[in-house]
Amino acid sequence: MSNIKVQTLKGFRDFLPTQARRRQYVINKLKQVFESFGFEPLETPALEYEEILLGKYGEEGDKLMYRFTDNGDRRVALRYDQTVPLARVIAQYANELPMPFKRYQIQPVWRAENTQKGRFREFLQCDIDTVGSNSCYTDAEIVCVVVKAFEKLGFRNFKILINDRENLKFYGQGFELSQDRNITAVRVIDKLKKIGREGVLDELSEKGFTTEQATFILQKVESTIPTENLEKVFTALEKFGIDKNRYEFSPTLARGLDYYTGIILEVEVEEYPVGSLGGGGRYDKLVGMFSGQDVPAVGFAFGFDRCIEAMEALNLFPDDLTTAKVLVTVFTKELIKNSIDVADRLHVRDINAEIYLDPEVKLEKQLKYADQKGIPYVIIIGDEEVKSGKVVLKDLKNRTQEAFSLDEVINKLTQ
Amino acid sequence: MSNIKVQTLKGFRDFLPTQARRRQYVINKLKQVFESFGFEPLETPALEYEEILLGKYGEEGDKLMYRFTDNGDRRVALRYDQTVPLARVIAQYANELPMPFKRYQIQPVWRAENTQKGRFREFLQCDIDTVGSNSCYTDAEIVCVVVKAFEKLGFRNFKILINDRENLKFYGQGFELSQDRNITAVRVIDKLKKIGREGVLDELSEKGFTTEQATFILQKVESTIPTENLEKVFTALEKFGIDKNRYEFSPTLARGLDYYTGIILEVEVEEYPVGSLGGGGRYDKLVGMFSGQDVPAVGFAFGFDRCIEAMEALNLFPDDLTTAKVLVTVFTKELIKNSIDVADRLHVRDINAEIYLDPEVKLEKQLKYADQKGIPYVIIIGDEEVKSGKVVLKDLKNRTQEAFSLDEVINKLTQ
Repeated sequence: MSNIKVQTLKGFRDFLPTQARRRQYVINKLKQVFESFGFEPLETPALEYEEILLGKYGEEGDKLMYRFTDNGDRRVALRYDQTVPLARVIAQYANELPMPFKRYQIQPVWRAENTQKGRFREFLQCDIDTVGSNSCYTDAEIVCVVVKAFEKLGFRNFKILINDRENLKFYGQGFELSQDRNITAVRVIDKLKKIGREGVLDELSEKGFTTEQATFILQKVESTIPTENLEKVFTALEKFGIDKNRYEFSPTLARGLDYYTGIILEVEVEEYPVGSLGGGGRYDKLVGMFSGQDVPAVGFAFGFDRCIEAMEALNLFPDDLTTAKVLVTVFTKELIKNSIDVADRLHVRDINAEIYLDPEVKLEKQLKYADQKGIPYVIIIGDEEVKSGKVVLKDLKNRTQEAFSLDEVINKLTQ
Repeated sequence: MSNIKVQTLKGFRDFLPTQARRRQYVINKLKQVFESFGFEPLETPALEYEEILLGKYGEEGDKLMYRFTDNGDRRVALRYDQTVPLARVIAQYANELPMPFKRYQIQPVWRAENTQKGRFREFLQCDIDTVGSNSCYTDAEIVCVVVKAFEKLGFRNFKILINDRENLKFYGQGFELSQDRNITAVRVIDKLKKIGREGVLDELSEKGFTTEQATFILQKVESTIPTENLEKVFTALEKFGIDKNRYEFSPTLARGLDYYTGIILEVEVEEYPVGSLGGGGRYDKLVGMFSGQDVPAVGFAFGFDRCIEAMEALNLFPDDLTTAKVLVTVFTKELIKNSIDVADRLHVRDINAEIYLDPEVKLEKQLKYADQKGIPYVIIIGDEEVKSGKVVLKDLKNRTQEAFSLDEVINKLTQ
């Protein structure tokens, strides 16, 4: 079998421990914030009937979706996002779910995209949504949770850009755009920051808008003031006690997707200006797709991979993000029980202590192993230590070592 | 779109919040134990090149695997287990991974099984493995971690059954079985507990073993004593301080899979005797499949769904396993800021406090919402409370309520 090429598919990734730990770190922080506001976990299957997903993400979506015929001749498709499955859940368990239904969902999705830097075919989506309420306070709560989440991850200079999709309905001066044309204009406006004023005007003209229309659209966008709806959300945000520097009205924010119906928002990190780290908004016409009636909803999707990239670039991961805090080495076969006992006492105090389990291996190699795994401390227990009732604690980063009683070690490691 | 039947595929499950929380609870407990011993997280993709997985799980596996051609005309397959991907990782990153490589992996796998009670087409696998060491202490550590894990989950009367695959090589009295025939015999012996002595003898004879062979095999199994290898593991287990009631030598334990080469183990819970809650063993010939050289390994797979079933049956989940600990209700539009402020102070103290965000909704309905979500406490802040500086804390389970200062509430909720 050894002539098989050992590789992963393009756009698919293995996460070795260092990377997997970082992902866990981010997920745990986010969950803590979500749950503190009463958002509850939801999981849906990786595979759905094709008809549940097909046609919900436009032509492009149907093309990028992983679809196939299963062994039972059913047409099935891999999860493409978490919103359509949420809509299915809302319809399927209508009588069981408390309303408003506040859920978070953190699962991989699959899209056969052209791979490029930062774009993958399997990636984690991380969504929160409040379904079943059109109170402006639920909009404000989403913004509030997003702010707390980015603070929790350690970001300092970030801002939530906020607009109302109502501001992006273009009519007046003798024209009114069809919904499709309007969305086309929104998608171009969405690039304002990237391609600038001239770029937008050019692209609008390319898409068949007259110079008058293009100028009108751009001027409308740039001169917009917050809607009454947005004013309510901003007042609610003050009640949530959110620092005013954390959010701002951004009339040029468009968000390309066509399903938004109210507030739209995006997160920008000043020191990592590669684009948004997440976005969302209110979408009152989407979740009801299966039940045939409108169900109000507002939500936000964290750009998980990009958050991790940004955190790596800004050094926001703790230095000591290792699994084991200490490696208890083994001196000789005779002393292995001493090492196990020490680890045991550390475990009781909730200190992750790995034991090096092969007494045949030289101490030097054991230390190398600790180093390779990034374990910051090593404990050594030789005959002398057994006699003195102490252990040697070696700090691999500062290259210091000292004999301590176990209680002292526990104190040091739990500091 | 509303004429689409809203349903999930057979064998695939949605996990609504109550169930999703239980899954999270188990995963978190298991991770704590795994990480305390230095096992590190690993994630591999859901899709692999078909050739990586094909032929690794026998004919049955090839049949049950979800395989298809992707948009780029590649033959791909969905993850079928986590051991073959582990073997791929070991070969692919040979120079980066520390050895021994101790990893845990908790991801869904997909098998197009005939669905029946407790058998699903998408289910979570939860594995720990130590790769790259043949020290008997690594065998013992796996047993130790399994014991600690089941204790952590709250199981009381459970036992690890242990045998050595060496004990299941059948030869003597004029016959020696080929490897295939031997595995056939092992698979029958595996059913000893289920179908009894007579059942095993009958089935062995059906499979073409002579009466002498069948009797010899069964007698050999029943009269076996621990191998030298097992004695070493048992001695190591004593050093780990594992209570002797937690494990026992079980010569009739066979484990049907053909790749084990040393110790084999299974967990049995006395009060939930529906079969094993997990199993594993040493498999020194498998992980090297891609690198073409033997790589020693020992591991254990937790029966995740069955553990949850057992914990539900034995009432091992905490009563108050809810997301929010308290719902802060909203009395009137004017008082919503007071409710938000109270929630905020609870959040600072790491208490999950959900705010009911629609002041138009009557208090009674807000209480019903708390009840439906299983939130144990409710806080009410009316005009009177604002004046007195207290809040009303309602205990929904005991149906009591009392006015407290916020500090008193915090004390009560963090108890």
